[in-house]
Amino acid sequence: MSSVPESIATAARALRRDRLTDLFARDPERVTHLSLAWEDWRIDCTKERWTADALALLVAHAEACNLEHWIAALFAGEKVNLSEGRPALHTALRQRDVAPLFVNGRDVMPAIRETRSRIRTLAGELRAGRRGGATGTPIQAIVHLGIGGSDLGPRLVCDALPGPPSGIDVAFVSNVDPADLQRALAGRNPATTLFIVASKTFTTQETLANAAAARRWIAAALPPGRDAGGHFIGVTANVAAATAFGIAESDVLPLWDWVGGRYSLWSAVGLPIAIRHGYDAFAALLDGAAAMDAHFRTAPFAHNVPVVLGLLGWWNACALGHTQRIVVPYAHGLARLAAWLQQLTLESNGKRVTRDGARVFGPTAPALWGGTGTDSQHAFFQWLHQGTHDVPVEFVVPVRAQYPPAEQQTLLVANALAQAQALLVGRGGDALRQELAALGLQGTPLNAAFAARECPGNRASTTLLLPTLDAANLGALLALYEHRTFVESVLLGINAFDQFGVELGKSLAQPIAAALGDGRTLPDATDPSTRALVKHVHSLMRKRS
Amino acid sequence: MSSVPESIATAARALRRDRLTDLFARDPERVTHLSLAWEDWRIDCTKERWTADALALLVAHAEACNLEHWIAALFAGEKVNLSEGRPALHTALRQRDVAPLFVNGRDVMPAIRETRSRIRTLAGELRAGRRGGATGTPIQAIVHLGIGGSDLGPRLVCDALPGPPSGIDVAFVSNVDPADLQRALAGRNPATTLFIVASKTFTTQETLANAAAARRWIAAALPPGRDAGGHFIGVTANVAAATAFGIAESDVLPLWDWVGGRYSLWSAVGLPIAIRHGYDAFAALLDGAAAMDAHFRTAPFAHNVPVVLGLLGWWNACALGHTQRIVVPYAHGLARLAAWLQQLTLESNGKRVTRDGARVFGPTAPALWGGTGTDSQHAFFQWLHQGTHDVPVEFVVPVRAQYPPAEQQTLLVANALAQAQALLVGRGGDALRQELAALGLQGTPLNAAFAARECPGNRASTTLLLPTLDAANLGALLALYEHRTFVESVLLGINAFDQFGVELGKSLAQPIAAALGDGRTLPDATDPSTRALVKHVHSLMRKRS
Repeated sequence: MSSVPESIATAARALRRDRLTDLFARDPERVTHLSLAWEDWRIDCTKERWTADALALLVAHAEACNLEHWIAALFAGEKVNLSEGRPALHTALRQRDVAPLFVNGRDVMPAIRETRSRIRTLAGELRAGRRGGATGTPIQAIVHLGIGGSDLGPRLVCDALPGPPSGIDVAFVSNVDPADLQRALAGRNPATTLFIVASKTFTTQETLANAAAARRWIAAALPPGRDAGGHFIGVTANVAAATAFGIAESDVLPLWDWVGGRYSLWSAVGLPIAIRHGYDAFAALLDGAAAMDAHFRTAPFAHNVPVVLGLLGWWNACALGHTQRIVVPYAHGLARLAAWLQQLTLESNGKRVTRDGARVFGPTAPALWGGTGTDSQHAFFQWLHQGTHDVPVEFVVPVRAQYPPAEQQTLLVANALAQAQALLVGRGGDALRQELAALGLQGTPLNAAFAARECPGNRASTTLLLPTLDAANLGALLALYEHRTFVESVLLGINAFDQFGVELGKSLAQPIAAALGDGRTLPDATDPSTRALVKHVHSLMRKRS
Repeated sequence: MSSVPESIATAARALRRDRLTDLFARDPERVTHLSLAWEDWRIDCTKERWTADALALLVAHAEACNLEHWIAALFAGEKVNLSEGRPALHTALRQRDVAPLFVNGRDVMPAIRETRSRIRTLAGELRAGRRGGATGTPIQAIVHLGIGGSDLGPRLVCDALPGPPSGIDVAFVSNVDPADLQRALAGRNPATTLFIVASKTFTTQETLANAAAARRWIAAALPPGRDAGGHFIGVTANVAAATAFGIAESDVLPLWDWVGGRYSLWSAVGLPIAIRHGYDAFAALLDGAAAMDAHFRTAPFAHNVPVVLGLLGWWNACALGHTQRIVVPYAHGLARLAAWLQQLTLESNGKRVTRDGARVFGPTAPALWGGTGTDSQHAFFQWLHQGTHDVPVEFVVPVRAQYPPAEQQTLLVANALAQAQALLVGRGGDALRQELAALGLQGTPLNAAFAARECPGNRASTTLLLPTLDAANLGALLALYEHRTFVESVLLGINAFDQFGVELGKSLAQPIAAALGDGRTLPDATDPSTRALVKHVHSLMRKRS
């Protein structure tokens, strides 16, 4: 299931030799055939190294991979996370209709609705200054403690949305590096600061270390006898651990084992969004995602945005052999989009075995990285235009501005379109020679200047135009990426919802931390490199004292 | 010069088949042979896919590429940037001795020293509250306007260093997206805000658009007749343009054409560092870099940190064929290191022609991306441990903490060493089977659990241990990366100091911006995709009104 059918491999081989610009000449309807529309969005896949015929082959392959079945299974709450025997029900978190949804014989929708209502109440109280700390002064700042999926999603959304400051300042701390928390606390007032501790298991090493340090910081500032617990809210599936930490049960919002961390921003993990931007914005985010869910569930494959982008992603990686993809949002608010997508795609599909445990034949998820436009034009775009590695780029372009002046927004959007065009057409030939000759160059200097300036072009990109970066469009965008990642997993034949690869490093860190902490020795079988590094760390630590 | 010699290609072919753990068994002195020391640093290259013999071949190749000559030429101010006929004298910016350095017959050192002195004075005045705005109130906040090289370096250093708040708040704005500036201005007081406009040419589209918007913001808040110019400092080689903008000539700090943007943080572009952290910290940064310069200039190749890391980088990319490298600093303050390195390496060596204009045979700079540890462990490390793409990782680990508590720093460092170990050794075999059997699994469930958890290991990494993240060590680290990038350019035979690939997109953006602004049509020859995108942007823009 995960290998590339011969018809697709043949099509890819032939297309590898073509110039992309020739593909436009060959199919006068190419723009119609390879552009998608959804609501006011336009998704231009015409500059990619494929054709309408290739897309038809891919749609047929998706059918052969039972994609329709898998989409239905995802939404129905079937146990698509086979290795852990669980459904993956992030779509239920944004489901707005009244239909029940059963997991192990129980309707999960009432608990989801009740949690939404608790988010609304809590965010409303905080925004209205109606929740006080241990001394009674209203809370004015939130520090959200979480890492990975409990951090990247809500942080991305809080950053991305514009809007009037809510009065409540929201900061995020994730890293176990003490610098992260200590810098976030500098200048803050313990009496008016509330911490959210988001950890599905309530055992995440980084989050719990930061939560303990935060509790010490609060406790040290309180009058004797006052309880620090009221400065903490928990978001977790492990209520017992949260209450043992000192959080009142009424301040623990639930998570469920059928919400994966990297799909959790729609749950109570998204509480900081509702606090920072208001519950209405959070609800609009859910609604935007639900609209994309409905599209994904019902649109024919050839017009289904997550399906077509998933097919394209799989084609680029598996048929054309690209080992990387680059995402460049032309929106400063999406500065963290690449980081969120890295977790989503690389943790979901960075695997090597199929659902059945067989070795995948061929590559799985390619690397994903990126940066914002226009900043990236002054950083790595030189490499895209003149380097030797050919990596497809995805431009994400909200058209209407969040802020004035309009001329800057026009420049921003123009730059996005111009970069996609430049990657396609390149620079060279007689046009460049004439340009240089007009500057008075000739002979060897002209040849040298030509070589230094020539850009090969012929580089693939997709451009995603969305109307603007508001909560509804952002919700749809993130849901689109979730579903595309799922489509790719189905074509690869793998389970997108587990992440057993992260266990090994955690277990190896324990004996090393013990050795660094108290000089305990590492097991004899430890490799000589790690032993030598531990020795050097010891010597550097001793120098401090 | 840029192709791989047969002896090196043969060595790489043989090593590709080996397991890295076997290389330790084969050379009992491997840790000694492939670890480097500099001051208190330890650079462990023992987990890379190479051997002491391969390193010897690479050192010989570096000699054959005249590396010694090129290093001398760089420091001597020779025109190593051949296509633009200029030297690349970032090392002069941190030179502390009194020796003159001649460019086109003129000693550049007096101007460098004078600029340092002006940075010291200006930063001192601002930090002491002795510089007032147009209304006389002391300046309390700096907004630095610059993009690419005028942004990434000073921003990285300002973020990285700890220390008491200076009283002056320093923010950075780079993107032409109006959201970037407008968010930075929200809540700020024009009367006490000073802007630095950093642009070598003083024509950079993004920076000048933001500077104009900033001037309007200041002017709108001033009493009639007061001049906004005093709220701006210029850092530029184009003094005339800066004074025409309204900046007093005494407030324009110089740049020179022999400082490349991506090598400019050591110049007046680094002014925000001196304002935020004090001139002494800026001086310590320069001194740290100068110490690395001296090492690079004089140490024998086999013990020369930038040379050996450059050889390793070239070996991984050109001999072993890796198309990517990943950098993971285990220090929250280095969250922007990967972005700075992207510009440094991809803009410097993302080229396709040699110094002489011939097509490079083989790949040039591989992609570079990354994120901080431990955050990245919860994002893309799944992909490193169980994905199908094999990408070398570089761990950058400052050992001693900037902040308490010490236990968190110990966890941080332990995680870095554990991840490098996990990538090397993997997880599987009888040990994993027994672990699963001990949980009561057998038969098919055991096999499925085994497949889901197996990590192949055998993945290369380098670990760079430095004593702590202070100004001197940070300066040395950044200089190390600059020199490594230069070493790689010499082995590739390319000019690391131009960036003509960025011109095309800029020129294509002009007609598109005009078309978006006033409905002008694009040239007939424009590709159908770009035309269709412009049309859709128009329709979305009209919907606003």
